[in-house]
Amino acid sequence: MTQERVKSKELAELGEFGLIRRITAAATIKNESTVLGVGDDCAVLSFPGKRVVVTTDLLTEGVHFNLVYVPLKHLGYKAVAVNISDICAMNAIPRQITVSLAISAKFTLEAIDDLYAGIHLACNRYGVDLVGGDTTSSLTGLTISITAIGEAEAGELVYRNGAKPTDLLCVTGDLGGAYLGLQLLERENELFRQNPTVQPQLSGYDYILGRQLKPEARIDMREIFSALKVHPTAMIDISDGLSSEILHLCEESGVGCRLYEERLSFDPQVQKMAEEIHINPLVAALNGGEDYELLFTISLMDHEKVRNHPDITVLGHMTAKEEGCMLVTAGGIQEIPLTAQGWNPLKSA
Amino acid sequence: MTQERVKSKELAELGEFGLIRRITAAATIKNESTVLGVGDDCAVLSFPGKRVVVTTDLLTEGVHFNLVYVPLKHLGYKAVAVNISDICAMNAIPRQITVSLAISAKFTLEAIDDLYAGIHLACNRYGVDLVGGDTTSSLTGLTISITAIGEAEAGELVYRNGAKPTDLLCVTGDLGGAYLGLQLLERENELFRQNPTVQPQLSGYDYILGRQLKPEARIDMREIFSALKVHPTAMIDISDGLSSEILHLCEESGVGCRLYEERLSFDPQVQKMAEEIHINPLVAALNGGEDYELLFTISLMDHEKVRNHPDITVLGHMTAKEEGCMLVTAGGIQEIPLTAQGWNPLKSA
Repeated sequence: MTQERVKSKELAELGEFGLIRRITAAATIKNESTVLGVGDDCAVLSFPGKRVVVTTDLLTEGVHFNLVYVPLKHLGYKAVAVNISDICAMNAIPRQITVSLAISAKFTLEAIDDLYAGIHLACNRYGVDLVGGDTTSSLTGLTISITAIGEAEAGELVYRNGAKPTDLLCVTGDLGGAYLGLQLLERENELFRQNPTVQPQLSGYDYILGRQLKPEARIDMREIFSALKVHPTAMIDISDGLSSEILHLCEESGVGCRLYEERLSFDPQVQKMAEEIHINPLVAALNGGEDYELLFTISLMDHEKVRNHPDITVLGHMTAKEEGCMLVTAGGIQEIPLTAQGWNPLKSA
Repeated sequence: MTQERVKSKELAELGEFGLIRRITAAATIKNESTVLGVGDDCAVLSFPGKRVVVTTDLLTEGVHFNLVYVPLKHLGYKAVAVNISDICAMNAIPRQITVSLAISAKFTLEAIDDLYAGIHLACNRYGVDLVGGDTTSSLTGLTISITAIGEAEAGELVYRNGAKPTDLLCVTGDLGGAYLGLQLLERENELFRQNPTVQPQLSGYDYILGRQLKPEARIDMREIFSALKVHPTAMIDISDGLSSEILHLCEESGVGCRLYEERLSFDPQVQKMAEEIHINPLVAALNGGEDYELLFTISLMDHEKVRNHPDITVLGHMTAKEEGCMLVTAGGIQEIPLTAQGWNPLKSA
């Protein structure tokens, strides 16, 4: 019996309720809207006079993450962050999460502690309360299902369907990093697999690795919008790639758009890694996904308010629906229809 | 290439968004509290002046269900019902659910349709709206994660911690059926596995099979309590077996209890199946689980209100904590400490 099996036995002996107690000991309640957290049949919440927003995501081992190169603490953090990102995309304030886990026999109690260390870190970073969940076993692999709940005044919410022709198309931060960080991790993992004496070459790539392994939800943008006195007309978070998200906004809003290639600038590490694997960084931005930046539209009249903000880039503008959704190449030479080549989570199904 | 692979290819081609459209076409919004269902980054809900209750459950193939004898439509229905049961255990009204699925390559589009047929059936039965979710692939097996949301006035909610010494311990319906239904299914499956020409012998056991395959949440009890003018002092749903749930109520409320064996009566099919596999039906009730009845306590002064109600049985009473949690055997001959031998979902981990 290996040490790992002994630890798994500890997990079985601790049992579901013991594990819940262990996990929730570190969960502090930070929000007034949390009336009761873990410990009853349901969590009890209260949002007087507010809209309540709810989102959920499910991550499975081997499809969404590879535990060979993703540390469990990072995985826990990221699993929370991607849900918080959806709350931010509504211009709401995240308040609570529930976390459900299915774990296989290979996971030790220490591994579960690492995963929850990341989850608790994210809860503290984003000011959310862990109020419930379910912990059970799986025959193979790890599955994480998180539901996030937030609140906002009805008039504060931003939907996907409010963009008008002439509205400006804007994005926060920079794109392509998460995808190229993944390519780097997969390349080094493959080299290691072929020759286990090879050390992974990751130095000089901390930015794109961080974008892949520890993405941050743009919880700051709600206050930035408020300070700039800008209310986006439509918004979505970038989980599947810029192309796919732009097409969602256009479809839901019944408009077209022009995206200007020359408006996109890239981090030097994004450019370097893209060169190394012989792709255009534009492709990483358009189709890579997992950047968890916010894509939004604002009225043309708000242009001055955002043009010098370091976190916001104007990428183009919306048009009438009939004009289509087009990428305008550098120098305005060509118009290429945008297509959704983002990740299809059912491709392997 | 088999027919099954062709169908899986169809699923990949339909893609996540195509599948979401297909699934949500059948989802009608029934509740005023659902401002926006599927289609944006979050669902948007509104519960002015109410408490919001949230619960979540995760079911994995091979651990919580065996697709050899569980039809997918039943599985979908049950996955919803067990979450609704947690809402009922708070004396709240279920309003919304989100459903996340991870499906492996073996699942056809038809299989997913069957699963969702059961989910939609349960949504209609319980009056809840399907407002969100996530559909993705898994390397192996099916995982279903459901979050249910409900509402109630603050004063209507019933927690686990309100039971007082002398309160009566009551239960809805009858117990043991779901566990014995599972034993029957597993026995017949094992016989079939050993000799595939053997037809399963399930006739005469429709009640216990239904208890296992299509459990119902006690959504009716809220109105029954209201009509009887009874407000339970504590409540929990029976998912892990009567023993385990009684101990939860006692621990959370800081009380002890006396459970009288002779107060438990069993369905004839429960008695017959228990005899066949040589167990006492009492054991199935105490440790079997999955009955999804409600266990609750009421003030002794409310005894007359419930004593003749066909859906309610008084099983015993609460005591001071020091008196322990005891099963009193028939005739009052012996007091045996109650122990939680319910299902440990981490035992196989």
